[in-house]
Amino acid sequence: MAATLMDDEVFKAFTTYATVVILKMMLVAFITAYFRITRGAFMNEEDVSRKSAEEKKKFLRTDPDVERARRCHQNDLENIVPFVVVGLLYALTGPELSCALLHFRVFAGARIFHTVAYIAALPQPCRGLSWVVGMFVTFSMAYGILSTILVL
Amino acid sequence: MAATLMDDEVFKAFTTYATVVILKMMLVAFITAYFRITRGAFMNEEDVSRKSAEEKKKFLRTDPDVERARRCHQNDLENIVPFVVVGLLYALTGPELSCALLHFRVFAGARIFHTVAYIAALPQPCRGLSWVVGMFVTFSMAYGILSTILVL
Amino acid sequence: MAATLMDDEVFKAFTTYATVVILKMMLVAFITAYFRITRGAFMNEEDVSRKSAEEKKKFLRTDPDVERARRCHQNDLENIVPFVVVGLLYALTGPELSCALLHFRVFAGARIFHTVAYIAALPQPCRGLSWVVGMFVTFSMAYGILSTILVL
Repeated sequence: MAATLMDDEVFKAFTTYATVVILKMMLVAFITAYFRITRGAFMNEEDVSRKSAEEKKKFLRTDPDVERARRCHQNDLENIVPFVVVGLLYALTGPELSCALLHFRVFAGARIFHTVAYIAALPQPCRGLSWVVGMFVTFSMAYGILSTILVL
Repeated sequence: MAATLMDDEVFKAFTTYATVVILKMMLVAFITAYFRITRGAFMNEEDVSRKSAEEKKKFLRTDPDVERARRCHQNDLENIVPFVVVGLLYALTGPELSCALLHFRVFAGARIFHTVAYIAALPQPCRGLSWVVGMFVTFSMAYGILSTILVL
Repeated sequence: MAATLMDDEVFKAFTTYATVVILKMMLVAFITAYFRITRGAFMNEEDVSRKSAEEKKKFLRTDPDVERARRCHQNDLENIVPFVVVGLLYALTGPELSCALLHFRVFAGARIFHTVAYIAALPQPCRGLSWVVGMFVTFSMAYGILSTILVL
């Protein structure tokens, strides 16, 4: 049965792209951790427990790079999670493979570019546009679902 | 195969409601963006790059309405994502259509009301109650799953 | 059809563990609510509307315990959601039951310990290690997916 779902080319394509964008999202957690350690900016007292009282204060602070990475992660959660949910249901409605692949590829490209634009602080509208493109792909798939299946 | 899943009435109902609540969640992102622009409250320096140095400082600030919309979005992530995951698995355990529809409808209604109550700052317990109702629906479905299927 | 998916032992195991970790994540929301009420630290003006103007100011504040619970919740969102998505697709690729169960059990254990370590502020590397173990399980499943199915 599980094997049956994975015989579907559209579902295989969805599986690939969903895994890729989720891995990309998890990567941002490592960027945040990297900035926390190199910039010395922590949130929890136990993270700086081996330091002296004076040093503790210095390390329990916010840092612009850390905050930037966290906002990027948050934006990923707000956009990649809807894509995965809507994309899964969309893949199950049996769309054309070429049409589905177009959606998945544009979304993955837009979100990878979004992360680069966010972390590197590229001038607008780089980040804004890639956000809108990702949103648009998810809306397009949601429209595809609701125009095929609607049980209220 | 994909078509087979979508022959199931319960799964079609889940597909409809999951898409609706995810779209509702994405809508809050636009409310946040709207408040950011009309209130002139941004987080990233590149978003105000065309402004003078003095104006930049003025626009890089937090605003109560923007923060309210962001908290609403965060609450959606914390509640709608569990609903979608638990609801998908619940739909696959083969519940009665009427029972499943009741769960999905109550949840969708509660979360739409929750957003209105949050953004419009309606007096409590409007927001609190709609949050509890949404939580309760997800718990009820989780109970339905674990009482049918439990492989530890 | 729904019944067919739930005949698969691996999928049943995934269903159980996904429900458990999502319930665990929702539990943190109640911990936050508990700290908000016992510590008297709220974010929204309507939550303290029955208080006098002076008391309002006192209750609209941040509290270290509330912030800690919120960070724990955020970390859950950033880790449990990827696990659920990758785990679902992994379960559909038809892995060995023993291998799948090992992944699911280690992840659930690591995340439950992570929550305890976060809320109780256990000394590092308790929290750090449990975070890395959870991440590693998700990466391992993602590798399993992409080595079986790759449609770019």
